[in-house]
Amino acid sequence: MPIYTAPTQDLQFVLQTVLDVAGSDTPGYDELDADTTAAVLEEAGKLSANVLAPLNPVGDEQGCTLENGVVRTPDGFKAAYDEMRAGGWMGLDADPEFGGQGMPYVLNCAVGEMFVSANMAFNMYQGLTHGAYSAIHAHGSADQKATYLPNMIDGIWSGTMNLTEPQCGTDLGLIRTKAEPQDDGSYRISGTKIWISAGEHDMSENIIHLVLARTPGAPEGVKGISLFIVPKFLVNEDGSLGARNALSCGGLEKKMGIHGNATCVMNYDGATGFLVGELNKGMRAMFTMMNEARIGVGLQGYAQGVVAYQNAAAFAQDRLQGRDVTGPANPEGPADPIIVHPDVRRNLMHQKSFVEGARAFALWGATLIDRAHRSGDAEAQGLISLLTPVIKGFLTDKGFETTVLAQQTLGGSGFTRDWGLEQFVRDARITMIYEGTNGVQSLDLVGRKLPAEGGKPVMAFFEMIKTFVKENEDDAALKQGFLDPLKAASKDLQAAAMYFMQNGMKTPANALAGSYDFLHLFGHVCLGFMWARMAKAAQAQLDAGVGDTAFLQAKLVTGRYYMARQLPATALHRARIESGGDTVMALDAANF
Amino acid sequence: MPIYTAPTQDLQFVLQTVLDVAGSDTPGYDELDADTTAAVLEEAGKLSANVLAPLNPVGDEQGCTLENGVVRTPDGFKAAYDEMRAGGWMGLDADPEFGGQGMPYVLNCAVGEMFVSANMAFNMYQGLTHGAYSAIHAHGSADQKATYLPNMIDGIWSGTMNLTEPQCGTDLGLIRTKAEPQDDGSYRISGTKIWISAGEHDMSENIIHLVLARTPGAPEGVKGISLFIVPKFLVNEDGSLGARNALSCGGLEKKMGIHGNATCVMNYDGATGFLVGELNKGMRAMFTMMNEARIGVGLQGYAQGVVAYQNAAAFAQDRLQGRDVTGPANPEGPADPIIVHPDVRRNLMHQKSFVEGARAFALWGATLIDRAHRSGDAEAQGLISLLTPVIKGFLTDKGFETTVLAQQTLGGSGFTRDWGLEQFVRDARITMIYEGTNGVQSLDLVGRKLPAEGGKPVMAFFEMIKTFVKENEDDAALKQGFLDPLKAASKDLQAAAMYFMQNGMKTPANALAGSYDFLHLFGHVCLGFMWARMAKAAQAQLDAGVGDTAFLQAKLVTGRYYMARQLPATALHRARIESGGDTVMALDAANF
Repeated sequence: MPIYTAPTQDLQFVLQTVLDVAGSDTPGYDELDADTTAAVLEEAGKLSANVLAPLNPVGDEQGCTLENGVVRTPDGFKAAYDEMRAGGWMGLDADPEFGGQGMPYVLNCAVGEMFVSANMAFNMYQGLTHGAYSAIHAHGSADQKATYLPNMIDGIWSGTMNLTEPQCGTDLGLIRTKAEPQDDGSYRISGTKIWISAGEHDMSENIIHLVLARTPGAPEGVKGISLFIVPKFLVNEDGSLGARNALSCGGLEKKMGIHGNATCVMNYDGATGFLVGELNKGMRAMFTMMNEARIGVGLQGYAQGVVAYQNAAAFAQDRLQGRDVTGPANPEGPADPIIVHPDVRRNLMHQKSFVEGARAFALWGATLIDRAHRSGDAEAQGLISLLTPVIKGFLTDKGFETTVLAQQTLGGSGFTRDWGLEQFVRDARITMIYEGTNGVQSLDLVGRKLPAEGGKPVMAFFEMIKTFVKENEDDAALKQGFLDPLKAASKDLQAAAMYFMQNGMKTPANALAGSYDFLHLFGHVCLGFMWARMAKAAQAQLDAGVGDTAFLQAKLVTGRYYMARQLPATALHRARIESGGDTVMALDAANF
Repeated sequence: MPIYTAPTQDLQFVLQTVLDVAGSDTPGYDELDADTTAAVLEEAGKLSANVLAPLNPVGDEQGCTLENGVVRTPDGFKAAYDEMRAGGWMGLDADPEFGGQGMPYVLNCAVGEMFVSANMAFNMYQGLTHGAYSAIHAHGSADQKATYLPNMIDGIWSGTMNLTEPQCGTDLGLIRTKAEPQDDGSYRISGTKIWISAGEHDMSENIIHLVLARTPGAPEGVKGISLFIVPKFLVNEDGSLGARNALSCGGLEKKMGIHGNATCVMNYDGATGFLVGELNKGMRAMFTMMNEARIGVGLQGYAQGVVAYQNAAAFAQDRLQGRDVTGPANPEGPADPIIVHPDVRRNLMHQKSFVEGARAFALWGATLIDRAHRSGDAEAQGLISLLTPVIKGFLTDKGFETTVLAQQTLGGSGFTRDWGLEQFVRDARITMIYEGTNGVQSLDLVGRKLPAEGGKPVMAFFEMIKTFVKENEDDAALKQGFLDPLKAASKDLQAAAMYFMQNGMKTPANALAGSYDFLHLFGHVCLGFMWARMAKAAQAQLDAGVGDTAFLQAKLVTGRYYMARQLPATALHRARIESGGDTVMALDAANF
């Protein structure tokens, strides 16, 4: 069975030492002092390691079952869900007005990383609820908020997002689900939705579905889509559960991974629904969920990498094969642990340098969201809007890659079920696809986010890196190992953006065929920036003689690996981009 | 259900137009005229598409079952196996002295690609038999050959390779299985072997196990290992089946993929075995199997990419989402097929340019093997010995990557079982691991093959590329699109080799920590070389006005993509290598 150790020390290093959350003037961050965060992380870590992680292979093996419309989750899921509820984890960052604890989003992300590393499929049930909560909180009426939010924050009710239909995935303009207005102000919802995560299950008493649908005569395409609340059980005036709504789970999807999560076909047969926000403005409301979900999916991606790496490292310490080429490291044993071999090290360093960089990147992104929401900081809003597709796309592509690398460390054992690595690979794979495939993320980045506000956010990003480099160039060690490579990588990113500006207007393919590489180029620069900041923070603590010396030195060494061996990928991505769209588009569609 | 179309036109292009097998003076290649090869490929293609491919999801879903020591393969496997036998496919390139057809190995590989694309798990049963056949053929006594080979070539008996034990995977020196000599010249074999593909099943009447074991008092480590034939049923003097041998399948491995293949724990409880070749020279005999198996695994890797790509391309032609940014391509429909989108194209071109390059590389390698075996050509032997780890490592890493890319083309559908893409991903994953993990391949390449014969083979490789470039530089189109990038990539490879020579002697980690990147660098140069050769061949046919114009032009366009967007990866691999071993080895083992 795979192991999981909560990375509380590294989470605290990022939160306190690198991001200095306790010292931030973002409203509410005064609650993030070192002791409070440590206590929260400690508790969440225990729950993750002791309750959620042991259920992960169980969920994979058993999956969910559908019988007579009833979906059963794997053994132990319901009890764990109740334990999560009892601990108040589901409302950690939710609005206190409706029963939430009101903690910053960044803390929720730090906790969420652990929950997801321990059991991704399980954590999706509450993840979806959180997304639905956010959409109702942002766009629902006062009455809707009062009716639904307290129970959703508690977890006794859960939530879903219903977007996809068989003919319509990325292109939501093709939605056919109908919403017919009724005399009492409600709507009758009819249609079929597919791939609905947590669409039906046995963990909560009610499920609040958020459904995109089209009213009669609505404008064509995405401009005619509205968002509706469609509860599994209608809610009486007094808040108690009323009649069963006309909706049902029509099937469970068989899929590569996340077996513990029920991926449902949902049939709406004239179900009663309630409009959220304005008519035909459903996309806007849905994007509230979506943007949050995209950060959450980025987190899922690297979190699977975290647990996979832990297992790879433990295996490499333990497995005896061959001898250290420089002399036996374990002369009494029949062979040396494979961690002595340089190629095993290369693989482990690749994993480690990614997941630690990714953690810092994701949590930095979360502080920007808090800043935007809690301080109304427009610059932070612009920046996180720019970075959201990068967090989603880069952290899931590389997170998946990390699980594959970790699986490779185990050799044949990595391919067998017993060791659990292959589950991490299969579970991580979905993160590159859902909430918008990573190709779609790259189009969002290049087509929408890059030119947004006349390029202000991306300029601010470059300026931020430039300033950081300038401010720290006097530190010779930091300059050579971190700032110089970061500068070179940032130059590649600027050149690629410039290429798009100069060549993408007249021939869109020159930009669009380079969008995927641009997303990766951007991701590497972000992780390079994070590593430079982490190195600075670690060195400062070492110089001051505070903190855990071995941990801090490991941080510096791991960062140097990233800068030397991962960051140079920016030049390759730039070369691909600058090769233009011609070679990509030259082949006639019929000749594929 | 996934589709499969036999790529006979492209196989013929590589065999006849690029490699000119019919014009080669390698003994036996006179049988490879265009008509004969076309007929063979046609038949194998039909078998693959009509019989094997439909069984692929069945095998995945059902897997193998073990009950009372009996292993049952999935429904339909036995009938398909019998059809393969009846067609004489199992002995296509086997020695006519023992009933084989004696065709060149390269033809066997071309046919094998199709079998593996259609159903990898199924094809392993005969693949393992072929490896065991080769080892007995090369190292067995005349009596052993007469006893075992005819039935193995026929397929009525199958074969296996028994290397791995729980404590011993890569490091075969740790083998504990015992072989005690008996008065009659046989040995009593006792021990447990794991991960034995096709170790027990219901398709053949007898299974000939080749088992590595240690005799009493043998030297320690790999120098004390011998190879034994241990048949499931002992064979009587007259060739009929005798007593059941004391061996049994103790369990089936649950694994990520290749469910249709029985991966067995094999228990040898004083089983009767017969020494193959000399005592304590088992490793040499095993390497006969292993080298062949490594080429075969490289072929498996890209063959999974082939079928995955086909399904991705078909989906992209069919699935309607969004509109072509340059104007509707399907104005009558609700949306355009997603193949119009540049990022979908990029992904498909990546897949296509890899699998076609890989096919040429693998088949070129197969001609070198034929050359070495049939002409005793030492230079060809040196070259294929050098290229074997590259074929295995690069084609499986990139083949797996291709299945993941293809899965991505399908979006959410790629994650569901129904579409079959996720099976290709799971099946392809093992190719990076078995027959020596790709990390081990890279060590073989850098540690053994590069310095072999004082570097003669690698020098010959560089010379071959230099000569090709020189001979064709007058062709301006070839020079710009193909030769210049090839030259640059080859320069990166030479620089990396030089780096190892100058820095790896004193500090082995400088070479060993770069071995994996070197393998990939080498692989890219090989595919770049193949694309340059294919472009030249295609252009020559176009100039001469022969062949299928659309096919030949697609070849040129696809090659240009590879040169522009894949080959530049050589610079990244070189940069990583030249960053040295320090950042890889600096972290104390305790701090992972």
